[in-house]
Amino acid sequence: MTFTTHDPETVPNLGIPTFTQGLMAEGVTGWFVMSGQIGLKPDGTLAGRDTETQIRQAFANIANLLADAGLGLDDLVFLRFYLTDADDIPAMRTVRNEWLGTRKVPSTLLVISALANPDWTVEIEAVAARR
Amino acid sequence: MTFTTHDPETVPNLGIPTFTQGLMAEGVTGWFVMSGQIGLKPDGTLAGRDTETQIRQAFANIANLLADAGLGLDDLVFLRFYLTDADDIPAMRTVRNEWLGTRKVPSTLLVISALANPDWTVEIEAVAARR
Amino acid sequence: MTFTTHDPETVPNLGIPTFTQGLMAEGVTGWFVMSGQIGLKPDGTLAGRDTETQIRQAFANIANLLADAGLGLDDLVFLRFYLTDADDIPAMRTVRNEWLGTRKVPSTLLVISALANPDWTVEIEAVAARR
Repeated sequence: MTFTTHDPETVPNLGIPTFTQGLMAEGVTGWFVMSGQIGLKPDGTLAGRDTETQIRQAFANIANLLADAGLGLDDLVFLRFYLTDADDIPAMRTVRNEWLGTRKVPSTLLVISALANPDWTVEIEAVAARR
Repeated sequence: MTFTTHDPETVPNLGIPTFTQGLMAEGVTGWFVMSGQIGLKPDGTLAGRDTETQIRQAFANIANLLADAGLGLDDLVFLRFYLTDADDIPAMRTVRNEWLGTRKVPSTLLVISALANPDWTVEIEAVAARR
Repeated sequence: MTFTTHDPETVPNLGIPTFTQGLMAEGVTGWFVMSGQIGLKPDGTLAGRDTETQIRQAFANIANLLADAGLGLDDLVFLRFYLTDADDIPAMRTVRNEWLGTRKVPSTLLVISALANPDWTVEIEAVAARR
C-alpha cells in the first residue's frame, strides 16, 4: 500500500531535486501499463511540429489515461523518455516539471534513431500502480 | 483476475483496431518477464536475413516461452518492438497481426542504432501475467 | 515466493550459460524499480571516460540501491543494457559476469544514439522484486 523512494548516499546524487534513483512499490493491487505516448491530440492529429509541444501533449495523454483507470500522476512508478534529438533534453525536463512538479518518479532518458512515424520526435512510456 | 484495456476519448485514437493505449492488470499472481526475442530458431541459427522472417521467428519464440510458463498470447501485458530500420515498420505490423489477431496489447515501437549482433534487425520484449 | 527461469528446447539456446529467456516471478510482495544507472560515483562525478569503468560503476550503483531497499542481486528480475557504441558489447558481458556470476536474469541489450549526457556511454535499467 506504499511507494517508497530510495536515494541512499551510496548512489549518485544527480543534483535534480525531482529525481529519484529507486522506488519500491508494495501492496500493489493493479498495474497500469500504457503504450508509449506521443504528441497526438485525442482527434489523432499532431499537436505541433516542435518537440516541446509534443512532450506537453504526451503528458496530457498520460494524465488522461491515468484518469480513465481511476489513477493520477501520484501513482506513476516509472517513466521512460525517448527523444530523437538530444537537443530536446532541456525541453523534456521543463515540461516534465510542469506536469510532475516535485513528484519523484524513477526514469530513463534515451536518444534513439526514430519513432514509428517520422513526424514524432518524442515518446514517453509510463507505468503506474493501484495501491 | 482481470485485464482491462483503456482507450478513452480523451487520448489519441490511432485508428488501429488492434492497438490499445492502456491496460490495467489486476489480481496478478505471477509476472512472466522475457529476454528480448530475436529471429533465432531454437537451434540457435538465424531464421533468415530478412527482417520479416526474423519478426515471425521472434513471435514464435515468444509464443513458445509463454507456453513453457503455462501462459498464452492472451496473457501478454506489453510489447516493445525494436527495429534497426524504419522501413521494416509495415512488416512488423503485418506479422504482429498474424500472431496477435485482434488482441489489444499496449506497445511501443522504436528504431535504434543496433542490437547485440549486427545480423539481428529486430528484437521484441514481451511481458505477460498470470491471472 | 519463487522465481523460475524458463529455457525450453522450443526457444533459441544462445550458448551463454548465464543467460535466461524467461523468468516467472510469483508471490511478489514488492517491486523495486530503478532509474537507469550510469557510470557516476556517489559524489556525482563520472567514474571514468571509458565504458568498462562506467559499466562497473553502474553495477555498483545497482547493488547499492538494491541494498538500500533490503534486496540483493539475487532479486533482480530484468536488466536492460543501453550502449552508445556496439564495440562495448564484450565489455558489458565481462562486467556483467563479474557482478552477476552464474545468476540468470532476463535481459535485452540495445545500441542507441545517445544518453542524457554525451559523456555517458552506458546505462542499465534494472528491476527487482521482493518475494
